[in-house]
Amino acid sequence: MLSEFDLIKRYFKRDRPGRAVLGIGDDCALLQPTPGRQLAISSDMLVEGRHFFAGADPRMLGHKALAVNLSDLAAMGARPVAFTLSLALPGADPAWLEGFAQGLFALADAHGCELIGGDTTKGPLNICITVFGELAPGHALRRDAAQAGDDIWISGTLGDARLALAGYLNEIALEPQALEQAGLRMHLPTPRVALGLALGLAPSSAPIAHAALDISDGLTGDLGHILAASGVGATLNVDALPAGPVLARQGRDLRRRFTAAGGDDYELCFTAPAGARAAVIDAGRQSDTQVTRVGTIDAQAGLRLVDADGKPLELGLAGWDHFAAG
Amino acid sequence: MLSEFDLIKRYFKRDRPGRAVLGIGDDCALLQPTPGRQLAISSDMLVEGRHFFAGADPRMLGHKALAVNLSDLAAMGARPVAFTLSLALPGADPAWLEGFAQGLFALADAHGCELIGGDTTKGPLNICITVFGELAPGHALRRDAAQAGDDIWISGTLGDARLALAGYLNEIALEPQALEQAGLRMHLPTPRVALGLALGLAPSSAPIAHAALDISDGLTGDLGHILAASGVGATLNVDALPAGPVLARQGRDLRRRFTAAGGDDYELCFTAPAGARAAVIDAGRQSDTQVTRVGTIDAQAGLRLVDADGKPLELGLAGWDHFAAG
Repeated sequence: MLSEFDLIKRYFKRDRPGRAVLGIGDDCALLQPTPGRQLAISSDMLVEGRHFFAGADPRMLGHKALAVNLSDLAAMGARPVAFTLSLALPGADPAWLEGFAQGLFALADAHGCELIGGDTTKGPLNICITVFGELAPGHALRRDAAQAGDDIWISGTLGDARLALAGYLNEIALEPQALEQAGLRMHLPTPRVALGLALGLAPSSAPIAHAALDISDGLTGDLGHILAASGVGATLNVDALPAGPVLARQGRDLRRRFTAAGGDDYELCFTAPAGARAAVIDAGRQSDTQVTRVGTIDAQAGLRLVDADGKPLELGLAGWDHFAAG
Repeated sequence: MLSEFDLIKRYFKRDRPGRAVLGIGDDCALLQPTPGRQLAISSDMLVEGRHFFAGADPRMLGHKALAVNLSDLAAMGARPVAFTLSLALPGADPAWLEGFAQGLFALADAHGCELIGGDTTKGPLNICITVFGELAPGHALRRDAAQAGDDIWISGTLGDARLALAGYLNEIALEPQALEQAGLRMHLPTPRVALGLALGLAPSSAPIAHAALDISDGLTGDLGHILAASGVGATLNVDALPAGPVLARQGRDLRRRFTAAGGDDYELCFTAPAGARAAVIDAGRQSDTQVTRVGTIDAQAGLRLVDADGKPLELGLAGWDHFAAG
């Protein structure tokens, strides 16, 4: 096995000017914060067999490990700055490391997010990334900021990642091409950084959006965190939820279940006042990101699911739990 | 198993005012950096069976997981501010979690270091902490700042942690009481935060120390990183190395090997100009930390080990590798 120092040097240390005052190679990395900005910090740990299959493509894994962290910055309206990577590896496989680093840095470079430090050790495969972003005070899109009367919006499309999982687990029979297409949504999620920035750092004095989060465990469960933190309820039009292109070709029941409670979507769910509809659509256009209005925040507690006609939907929670990515 | 949210709430979320603008519970934590300060960031991953024995006392593990990170801040001369904790657990064992949280928070509170976020997931036991500190620009104690003519200093004592490992592995027979005493140095390392601050943030315009790092893999190997980064060499008086109280009662060969190349010490090794000797001793007194002068930085490359009489020591590298914590 390569020594820890050889490994870091060969695959993760890059000779290029970066944002950090001091990068990889000392006891700590050093960052000079932008004056007046707040620091947004998030950490995600990915475990083999839990968050990805054993033998997963290392390039896609490198992408996804950073993408889920950038998605947290996006949900806060923060601009990516830097990240640390801690990696437990069963062994130092050069082909794996090269693929992983390629996927990781391609996404990092696309967002100007610099790898500034971390750790490598031997152990069961585990990827832990901590990401740092910046935002202006008062412009964070928090979970506790939803207000009764707000619209509920979703970025992109939902459910294709969950559909791919169902295909891999043989819960559902999918054509190979459809499975491959849906699988890309599971393996290569797109963090909605530009949309988050457009919603948070609006040119007006206040952010366009009130509350926001990223959908990782399924929409209804994650929306529940906004409702609980904000002390409000919601009505969600399940038939308005934008299904991924592969899921859109499936039957209505599956569409409803996998858009409403899929998982691994890494889309933003956010609320904004009804008066901000044009601004939200403009933010979507600016960031080249589809935005869809799917419901309303209510003063009355609880989450009410309705169909296209506004009729209550009878989607039992038991069924949802069964399908929840556990 | 407790849900992730229950677990975080019960064991890791605390109702007390903190430094963070926004702590645990949103997509990101928010920190407001102190104007004019730089941010020092370090991340360490601890894996069961690699960094600690299976079945290790959870309270000591909570202490150690944070201590090794605080030690990195100390080695940079940074003041601890906050940390994130990502935890993969085979199951949610309340007794384990309670012990772990106690050990973790006792040390965190002693250093005013706030837990602001992280992740929990199911998986082989893995503890990943990322720690944040602050320091004044130009006051970081970097590895590349040693200068020919500098003294080499060590905080505290060395080798008792390595001696305990030898005892646990039955490489060496130790009295139960001696093993217990030495074991505490392995399980409960003391991060030298106050000393690092005294050396870095000196009241004078420049730091007292030039280069510094914390000793985790054994002194000679770690000192080698300072030498390589600074483009210098060193002469180390092995008989001047301060042995831990248990190791001090062992024979000379073992003392030499385990002080010079033990591992898991988490003491600081730093260099300072000869003119700063009184200031270093004063920094040690202020921070209630023993400091010992053990060698000299040379212009000539390479690390020269000598005995109390200045004679070259014949400690073969093969023997060192055998004992290095691998």
